[in-house]
Amino acid sequence: MAIPDAPLLRALRGDRPERQPVWFMRQAGRSLPEYRELRVGTRMLDACLTPDLAAEITLQPIRRHDVDAAIFFSDIVVPLRLAGVDVVIEPGRGPVFADPVRTAADVERVTSIDPAEVAAAADPIREAARRVTAELSDQVPLIGFAGAPFTLAAYLVEGGPSKEHLRARGMMHADPQSWHRLAGWLAKVSRAFLDAQIEGGAQAVQLFDSWAGSLSTATFREFIAPHSTEALEGIEVPRIHFGVGTGAFLDDMRLGGLADAVGVDWRMPLDEAAAIVGPDVTLQGNIDPALLGAPWPVLAAHVDDVLARGRAARAHVLNLGHGVPPDTDPTVLTRIVARAHGEDA
Amino acid sequence: MAIPDAPLLRALRGDRPERQPVWFMRQAGRSLPEYRELRVGTRMLDACLTPDLAAEITLQPIRRHDVDAAIFFSDIVVPLRLAGVDVVIEPGRGPVFADPVRTAADVERVTSIDPAEVAAAADPIREAARRVTAELSDQVPLIGFAGAPFTLAAYLVEGGPSKEHLRARGMMHADPQSWHRLAGWLAKVSRAFLDAQIEGGAQAVQLFDSWAGSLSTATFREFIAPHSTEALEGIEVPRIHFGVGTGAFLDDMRLGGLADAVGVDWRMPLDEAAAIVGPDVTLQGNIDPALLGAPWPVLAAHVDDVLARGRAARAHVLNLGHGVPPDTDPTVLTRIVARAHGEDA
Repeated sequence: MAIPDAPLLRALRGDRPERQPVWFMRQAGRSLPEYRELRVGTRMLDACLTPDLAAEITLQPIRRHDVDAAIFFSDIVVPLRLAGVDVVIEPGRGPVFADPVRTAADVERVTSIDPAEVAAAADPIREAARRVTAELSDQVPLIGFAGAPFTLAAYLVEGGPSKEHLRARGMMHADPQSWHRLAGWLAKVSRAFLDAQIEGGAQAVQLFDSWAGSLSTATFREFIAPHSTEALEGIEVPRIHFGVGTGAFLDDMRLGGLADAVGVDWRMPLDEAAAIVGPDVTLQGNIDPALLGAPWPVLAAHVDDVLARGRAARAHVLNLGHGVPPDTDPTVLTRIVARAHGEDA
Repeated sequence: MAIPDAPLLRALRGDRPERQPVWFMRQAGRSLPEYRELRVGTRMLDACLTPDLAAEITLQPIRRHDVDAAIFFSDIVVPLRLAGVDVVIEPGRGPVFADPVRTAADVERVTSIDPAEVAAAADPIREAARRVTAELSDQVPLIGFAGAPFTLAAYLVEGGPSKEHLRARGMMHADPQSWHRLAGWLAKVSRAFLDAQIEGGAQAVQLFDSWAGSLSTATFREFIAPHSTEALEGIEVPRIHFGVGTGAFLDDMRLGGLADAVGVDWRMPLDEAAAIVGPDVTLQGNIDPALLGAPWPVLAAHVDDVLARGRAARAHVLNLGHGVPPDTDPTVLTRIVARAHGEDA
């Protein structure tokens, strides 16, 4: 099979391949015992910046699950680390920044870093992606990814994880000039991270706006969409745009047609989502992660329902509605893949 | 003024009083220095169960802000503590349960507690409410409150705070019988808590479903609405039903007309909300807490916009879109009240 005929890439172009493409956000990671074993003694961001480790972790779920895409193993804050920003990922908590970016002077300080620094420091990313694509040798495409400017800002302004992202949302209104400066810089930083993965061979990309659901539609349009657009504009591989809780502005998540696919979380049935986004975009999603622990007949019926509703879209990439929870039994994921491929009785 | 003419109660009945009623969720609590001083050395749940302390904390924001309602100082897990469930509130984290309720046997264990135990143990609640209403002497109404069954279950099943409430949502699908048993029990527990506050003189109640935004519309209808209805049915004072992120099923938040008012978070403009819920219900909300730190002209324009959009509803109670953040400058809240009352130039 030549890579352009891979079911994932056909679906992102709007085709309906015979084989239903399926992959899982966070398929590479904590749900796999072979991952937990490999990560012993290595901190998260160090693992992301060690090419053989990042490549191996990216490949683990391909060997195990028969999924239709690899998702690059990394973290949305990796490009910030490459830019020299002091950030660590605390286990069980998330990214924590030594110097939160809250004032105009803070924004001035961080945005004075040239985003070209990310490109210059991204060899470990290019190298890891190259190893993955060499090993996959045109059988399974690699999806590169990056955090959307808002989600990165939500961490950076707060200094760590937060529930309602009050400080980042506050900056938009209190000091819109600083906000746009920061978000514009983050768009370039995430773009450099995507470019490095594409240079390493990634055949598609996904922009994650995990926290966009805390925004109103008007705020998303004015303060977020232009910067997410900038992060994706001009990229020559298919683009997936994913957010959580973004049902109220799902059509805006198309970024004016820039996105080849829009990811949908577990809250909105795909047929409703298809009616909103129209016939020019593929949908990705949306198995509810809360059902992964349910008895198989309950979960299988849910998977079938998601697939049936996905037929209302131009094309459909099966996925979860958010990332794989760490305590997921990975054999359940394998069985979902088999069912999507018509191999589960 | 007789209490039935209080602006809050008139607005909840659907009138438009000359004075715009305004209060703030979490107005009693961490944003006030006099609260922080009073709480030194007392754990949260102990403070809730000490009548003179709970009454004093409830009254503090009335003395300071000129708000149009007192909200009873307590916590949604207090009735569970009164039922004998082992729960503490960890500062900076939230409610933590010694024994999470995850299996059918766990549900059997906890629901075997008679909800009448809550009523029998609720004298500190009645007494605190009585002290508040005696001091307010028909000038300002007291709002009693309770957690909605889903939000309580989200804590109880997980054992503490969680982001997407996977375990509680999972139980609905994996073991619907246990789910309905648990949620039905929680409805009775919260109802007993509301009744105790009403017996102590509360003139209105609010049911908080802070985590309902993690649900799909179909899930809310099947697994949540019947139990939230049970918690509020037959109550003879006005009822406010509040959720966060519930824009997709805002009309369902009316609980078939049972709610006199529906609370709206900061995501949806009130004129849009009014178009959804129709002319038979009052709206409450929805100043964005993220703007409380913005320069006053920015915040004042936002407050004016909320008030203007609120005119599309049958009636409007001004509030935030969620609770007062702990680091809020309380003088800002006072100024918002003055502006709502036409006393800020």
